[in-house]
Amino acid sequence: MRKIACVGAGNVGRSWAMVFARAGLQVQLYDSDATALQRDTMPLIKASLADQADAGLVDDAAATAARIVPCTDLETAVRDVDYVQESVYEDAGLKRELFGQLDALSRPDCILASSTSAIPGSEFMQALQFPERALVVHPVNPPHLIPLVELCKGPGTSDATLARANEFMESLGQVPIVVRKEIAGFILNRLQFTLVGELMHLVSTGFCSAEDADKVVKHGLALRWAFLGPTEVAHLNASEGFLGFVDGLGDMMKRLATDAKVDYPWTRGDAEQIHAPLAKHMPIEQIGEFQRWRDRRIMALREHLAGAESPSK
Amino acid sequence: MRKIACVGAGNVGRSWAMVFARAGLQVQLYDSDATALQRDTMPLIKASLADQADAGLVDDAAATAARIVPCTDLETAVRDVDYVQESVYEDAGLKRELFGQLDALSRPDCILASSTSAIPGSEFMQALQFPERALVVHPVNPPHLIPLVELCKGPGTSDATLARANEFMESLGQVPIVVRKEIAGFILNRLQFTLVGELMHLVSTGFCSAEDADKVVKHGLALRWAFLGPTEVAHLNASEGFLGFVDGLGDMMKRLATDAKVDYPWTRGDAEQIHAPLAKHMPIEQIGEFQRWRDRRIMALREHLAGAESPSK
Repeated sequence: MRKIACVGAGNVGRSWAMVFARAGLQVQLYDSDATALQRDTMPLIKASLADQADAGLVDDAAATAARIVPCTDLETAVRDVDYVQESVYEDAGLKRELFGQLDALSRPDCILASSTSAIPGSEFMQALQFPERALVVHPVNPPHLIPLVELCKGPGTSDATLARANEFMESLGQVPIVVRKEIAGFILNRLQFTLVGELMHLVSTGFCSAEDADKVVKHGLALRWAFLGPTEVAHLNASEGFLGFVDGLGDMMKRLATDAKVDYPWTRGDAEQIHAPLAKHMPIEQIGEFQRWRDRRIMALREHLAGAESPSK
Repeated sequence: MRKIACVGAGNVGRSWAMVFARAGLQVQLYDSDATALQRDTMPLIKASLADQADAGLVDDAAATAARIVPCTDLETAVRDVDYVQESVYEDAGLKRELFGQLDALSRPDCILASSTSAIPGSEFMQALQFPERALVVHPVNPPHLIPLVELCKGPGTSDATLARANEFMESLGQVPIVVRKEIAGFILNRLQFTLVGELMHLVSTGFCSAEDADKVVKHGLALRWAFLGPTEVAHLNASEGFLGFVDGLGDMMKRLATDAKVDYPWTRGDAEQIHAPLAKHMPIEQIGEFQRWRDRRIMALREHLAGAESPSK
């Protein structure tokens, strides 16, 4: 993999371009909106690369930015690249049309990867001439800070393509996982929204405030989850490991699951009650500043985690 | 609060004793098993305090240990203390009998707090002479490393007792939240086991491996949750804050909630498949070493988080 095209230069496409460029790859960054591409996208990329250089994630911000070439002609962007990452608006028809074009314009051995987060690949990859090289590579926003990516085959994806995409993502410092069968929301959003659904249920029915529920995650659960997954946490919570945990607490876990109300029908009024204190603490007109603060915190956290004691010591 | 009694010297009670002692308080650590108390408990406390001193959580490990006095007579342990933290085995009858004794043996203004994690206070606090001073103070194991504690009133708890316990926990560096109505599992375990339930469903029905599901949490979700709660994450994911998130993604979230299977009937065979690779990576005979590694990592993570840039900067 040497030359990459990012198709779509919104938040996700812009972030992907930095992931590839900081690994030394040449990136064609395509968007149909020429003005936005020059006026907004490139300055945003340069500002972010400066923050990443401060955090040690990028060696040379200027050289990295120089590897990203904005481009408003799709054929020019993709005709000679090894890998395309599509990140356009979530619309099945739009993606279907675009994948048809990418299929025709790129080399047949070029991987076509989609950032789709809600639409399964089978809805827009089924009519390709070379379907074996197309798959879903779903990032977590923004991928230059959150390394997890979810790989999922489309209707015709070959094992070789899945293996190549997996290896490529690892070479970039991302953390790929494989979703073995198509499912709405893949794994990450399913786990996230399951927890958030029960949180909405508990808050909306008066068991605790949203602020307190947030504290439960920040000052409780995430202090383990930042370096141990849920099954690893359980494994270390019982002297007989995961099976000991299941034998001891499995019944309790199943009881709680029975009356969890992940699909509690919360209303916009419930959401307004959660919104109000958040907006007081993090005002809407300062969301951009708080997002930059969040991103610096994620970078610092990853640096801490990377330098922390490994389990084999 | 000057003098504390910890009743029950297992994992939880021992950890509580260190929380109180490192704040400079005198601790009577009661257990009916005199041999275990002297032979096992005190050496374990000293080893843990040495680790905490290395991590900067304790100034003087020896002086802290000296404030913890093992005690095998319940009346001696509780008669002159300001606060009792009960952490005996999860059995409603046992706790009911013990709370009757504590009610009779302690000063009427002494707070009686239970570490109960599954049994609601109303099942063992209802017959007290002074019920206004009894409540649930549920820790996350181990409380000397995980600061979140869940406060929940029992049938007769006064507002003043809840406020005093809340203030006391904050003074110790713990992070208290209030559970406003009794519910099985309180908030933390409900959120945890809801996510784990959906994880078991996805793994047991072949959508991904348990190892990959763990990666989703470690390298995805927890990189935000370690310093932003779920509602704060949503607030910063949309330019119009939490309401913008709900207006844009609420429908998708509700759709995923509809087919989440938190109560999927996973079997012990499913659990065995998860257990096997975990036990290869973290062998059962080395669980103790891995637990100490986990605890050092949590300490280092808390130090990192405490020193990180605050949002107001």
